[in-house]
Amino acid sequence: MLPHIVFLFSLLLSTSHAAVQDFCVADLKGSDGPAGYPCKTPATVTSDDFVFAGLSAPGNITNIIGAAVTPAFVGQFPGVNGLGLSAARLDIGPGGVIPLHTHPGANELLIVTQGHITAGFISSASTVYIKTLKKGELMVFPQGLLHFQVAAGKTKAIGFAIFSSASPGLQILDFALFASNFSTPLITKTTFLDPALVKKLKGVLGGSG
Amino acid sequence: MLPHIVFLFSLLLSTSHAAVQDFCVADLKGSDGPAGYPCKTPATVTSDDFVFAGLSAPGNITNIIGAAVTPAFVGQFPGVNGLGLSAARLDIGPGGVIPLHTHPGANELLIVTQGHITAGFISSASTVYIKTLKKGELMVFPQGLLHFQVAAGKTKAIGFAIFSSASPGLQILDFALFASNFSTPLITKTTFLDPALVKKLKGVLGGSG
Amino acid sequence: MLPHIVFLFSLLLSTSHAAVQDFCVADLKGSDGPAGYPCKTPATVTSDDFVFAGLSAPGNITNIIGAAVTPAFVGQFPGVNGLGLSAARLDIGPGGVIPLHTHPGANELLIVTQGHITAGFISSASTVYIKTLKKGELMVFPQGLLHFQVAAGKTKAIGFAIFSSASPGLQILDFALFASNFSTPLITKTTFLDPALVKKLKGVLGGSG
Amino acid sequence: MLPHIVFLFSLLLSTSHAAVQDFCVADLKGSDGPAGYPCKTPATVTSDDFVFAGLSAPGNITNIIGAAVTPAFVGQFPGVNGLGLSAARLDIGPGGVIPLHTHPGANELLIVTQGHITAGFISSASTVYIKTLKKGELMVFPQGLLHFQVAAGKTKAIGFAIFSSASPGLQILDFALFASNFSTPLITKTTFLDPALVKKLKGVLGGSG
Amino acid sequence: MLPHIVFLFSLLLSTSHAAVQDFCVADLKGSDGPAGYPCKTPATVTSDDFVFAGLSAPGNITNIIGAAVTPAFVGQFPGVNGLGLSAARLDIGPGGVIPLHTHPGANELLIVTQGHITAGFISSASTVYIKTLKKGELMVFPQGLLHFQVAAGKTKAIGFAIFSSASPGLQILDFALFASNFSTPLITKTTFLDPALVKKLKGVLGGSG
Amino acid sequence: MLPHIVFLFSLLLSTSHAAVQDFCVADLKGSDGPAGYPCKTPATVTSDDFVFAGLSAPGNITNIIGAAVTPAFVGQFPGVNGLGLSAARLDIGPGGVIPLHTHPGANELLIVTQGHITAGFISSASTVYIKTLKKGELMVFPQGLLHFQVAAGKTKAIGFAIFSSASPGLQILDFALFASNFSTPLITKTTFLDPALVKKLKGVLGGSG
Repeated sequence: MLPHIVFLFSLLLSTSHAAVQDFCVADLKGSDGPAGYPCKTPATVTSDDFVFAGLSAPGNITNIIGAAVTPAFVGQFPGVNGLGLSAARLDIGPGGVIPLHTHPGANELLIVTQGHITAGFISSASTVYIKTLKKGELMVFPQGLLHFQVAAGKTKAIGFAIFSSASPGLQILDFALFASNFSTPLITKTTFLDPALVKKLKGVLGGSG
Repeated sequence: MLPHIVFLFSLLLSTSHAAVQDFCVADLKGSDGPAGYPCKTPATVTSDDFVFAGLSAPGNITNIIGAAVTPAFVGQFPGVNGLGLSAARLDIGPGGVIPLHTHPGANELLIVTQGHITAGFISSASTVYIKTLKKGELMVFPQGLLHFQVAAGKTKAIGFAIFSSASPGLQILDFALFASNFSTPLITKTTFLDPALVKKLKGVLGGSG
Repeated sequence: MLPHIVFLFSLLLSTSHAAVQDFCVADLKGSDGPAGYPCKTPATVTSDDFVFAGLSAPGNITNIIGAAVTPAFVGQFPGVNGLGLSAARLDIGPGGVIPLHTHPGANELLIVTQGHITAGFISSASTVYIKTLKKGELMVFPQGLLHFQVAAGKTKAIGFAIFSSASPGLQILDFALFASNFSTPLITKTTFLDPALVKKLKGVLGGSG
Repeated sequence: MLPHIVFLFSLLLSTSHAAVQDFCVADLKGSDGPAGYPCKTPATVTSDDFVFAGLSAPGNITNIIGAAVTPAFVGQFPGVNGLGLSAARLDIGPGGVIPLHTHPGANELLIVTQGHITAGFISSASTVYIKTLKKGELMVFPQGLLHFQVAAGKTKAIGFAIFSSASPGLQILDFALFASNFSTPLITKTTFLDPALVKKLKGVLGGSG
Repeated sequence: MLPHIVFLFSLLLSTSHAAVQDFCVADLKGSDGPAGYPCKTPATVTSDDFVFAGLSAPGNITNIIGAAVTPAFVGQFPGVNGLGLSAARLDIGPGGVIPLHTHPGANELLIVTQGHITAGFISSASTVYIKTLKKGELMVFPQGLLHFQVAAGKTKAIGFAIFSSASPGLQILDFALFASNFSTPLITKTTFLDPALVKKLKGVLGGSG
Repeated sequence: MLPHIVFLFSLLLSTSHAAVQDFCVADLKGSDGPAGYPCKTPATVTSDDFVFAGLSAPGNITNIIGAAVTPAFVGQFPGVNGLGLSAARLDIGPGGVIPLHTHPGANELLIVTQGHITAGFISSASTVYIKTLKKGELMVFPQGLLHFQVAAGKTKAIGFAIFSSASPGLQILDFALFASNFSTPLITKTTFLDPALVKKLKGVLGGSG
């Protein structure tokens, strides 16, 4: 009886091409495309490819924003390739802030795991949806909308943001405006901000133009 | 011979449910969902449902930005429902500007049809891609990224923006910040802008908080 | 100058249909469809719609599996409708187990937030990928594949599972086989399990047939 | 022990909204949308909703084309709603023909189950891909391309076409041109066909204009 | 006149990059990605690429299950790449069985072409949907749910399963549990099956651990 | 303070893999796949990659149709890769015609920018939707349906067609039938056209077979 089974089993296992698409761990040395990276050869895939330990340590928050964002996007965690999921860890010290930003390519689900976080987003209709979240509470931020997270209490807060794409992108408003080569005349023309302020913030954040 | 044909024809025409999904003109009185609006009954659909004349007239540019955006999204043009396409007309007077904004839900393709437009977008990596476009030239703006359009010459410019969604959304940075109820302390905390400037711009744009 | 702005602002705000699709909070009283539930009227949406507190309390683990799964799918958390994201909280006591199961409609990303969890999944090629995870570590489980989570240490473990769909589904193998009306002859025929065992487990889990 | 299980079981079963999306049998009385029809209430769904017997009987081929197409699209088979699949049965008598047609909304996979069928499609590059298929052989026809099936032998042929959409659509070239109200001057202008021929075929197929 | 046409024709044909995406026959030597395999160069594509004859011969059913599954997934039939369709042939002898299994990545449509098949699936809510199908009848099995097919009569049955993906995957429950290296302690812990039974079935099916 | 910022900034910029998917300019030397072409290395991308000037010059309409279609598909305009958008310019002289055709892979939105165009499409139900459009008016043509555009006035008309795919495809009915190697017997069998007419049109358009 056994040989028959083994025969059947071999036959089914031989459909290796089909089985591959159970998952598609990114081969980061390959060229990515609109749907993600090419798949690592299945035979070389191990349990480690599906696991990421890089968010277990706290981010360094001794910086100007008193906070840190540590990404687990496909570039850091190849196992999420093609799965429509990725993550980031937020560490926000007392008084810290994740500045206003967008994820151009993904919706976000935030889980607070320590402390309190006040989070909010602004809709296309310029309505602000804002809430202070406790440990274990969730909040969603629809794709592409400006949003922020700030510490709400006197202790450090930690959260995990999960995204609906392996490559959500991250556009921080201040960096886009004041850490880029976006020329001051164009910034002032397209934002109505004061040129002196623009130049001052460029000085701090390293922008040019 | 004719009866046989008519029989066949009737049979095939009777597959009316299947044929419906050739198109799905929005019934705006119905509740929309994640994929769009319910479909208007096919029997009541006419050629007019697939046509939109609202972009043939110039937008009113006698305003503070010297420009106008006239939308042909699904709310205005129900024929685009479910098609992954919509449009807007841009009228930009000399010196006019479409302020920095994003479309949270769509990529954009701009066609300049009159005059010259300088357009640009900022990537997640804070690189600015900018170009002055002539009549007949195209530029794309990837989803969710901050971008702008300004008149590049001494004459009025016109362009048509086409979006990869029937509901692209439109988040104008200044409106999000200064025409909303986003509180001044939170704005300054999440953007590093000066409170005095924030209050001044709120005064102009009508924001509160 | 102000009237011009207000005029422009009103014009843009009047594109209300387009703005709706920034988000689509589920109206659970409406009929769902292949893409999710109809959207709640935007005017009635508040910050609370985007927040879910139901995962902040521990699940009750004084049961046969010593564990609990608390869902935050669209049925519990209407704000995730159409966003391609949902969540669940896992509480696993010492010796506890989330039995072998699949999510037919979603990939899963697990974040361990307390204790240690040994988790694994089985691929179409019958390879088992297994790993013991510490606090802050992530693991992904591709869509539709059998997987499990068990406590790895002597203390209670907690994790959050995030799914790539607002309705991931949950098929627990034992419930599918032994808590359903799947007839014992068909179970034994299609699984090669012993009829006596099937009947015994049906007795425990409440299955019939 | 049993009460605990039943408790757990009830808890999990109570996540009814999430479970719904395992499937979404069409409620054809509801309004369809871009993603399909609203779902029938799960409690009223039975095995019969997932089964369709309408393709078990041969189509009537005593007509001008000596062939018949019997659809099992979502309008006939509500169980395929949202599944990205539907089917049709082809009966082609000796000398019969399924005239040149397209499916605007789906790719097609043809399985020959009796006799021989010569099938082909024409690409955008005007290349014709053509093949005579035996019982058990498969052929694919990419979305939206003109294709046909004709009997290849002296006996009746049967095939099943499966589509990558629950609503593939069906545009038969001759019906589009000669059974519609497409005016003869416009047909001749846009196809270079002879007006006399157009009028003759309209006479046979019932077209006007 | 002809030269003008030829000029136009050449111009249009020269848009070769665009035309390519009519279809994308898999180049199986290339690395696959989340959306499938790279496309074979269009110039080398022939009619044979769109045809698959491997399902015309019966599968070998002289094995323990008295049945055979012959796949026509993208690995066997490169023409389905990117089309969201693939197929498999089921041969089920009298008393034969396709054991309980899932397709993690696709919905399934079954067409019975000979004999009688009793088929069923189990939903997330642990409801069993079961039906005996005759020749020409269809049944759908939603993605990722456990299902089976058994011969319902005294004669051999044949069916064709069509999937909503070119790579549906195939996870046979018994193989996942008893033909893998899934350790017996973990199996018993996560399924409540008896260790002796697990070891016995591993002995038959070749599992280890 | 500055070093801290620069540190943070570098950290975030180092998430380069994630940032890539803001856009995916086609590397046309790579092999395309079902989702498009591999991405050009971001470091080599410039503003010019997002701009296309090839539609600014009129197409040559001194040909048999008195019209020209100039494509800006991904093959001509690599910046649209993966964005679900592309374009074409239509130049239609007085009396000119864009012959009956389909785009197998995309919906179309037409914007008239000069003159008058009469445009129409035929649905699966053989209904003709037709309209004469003025400058600035829009019309949509659902995917895969036969449609046409003809000059409606005594002056040249210009339009821009935008598609919901970077590779919409273009199947011109006359070319498919009369400029291919589709054999005359098969054409007449599958279209009921007169063999003499077929041969005559093949003579003009260069078809064989």
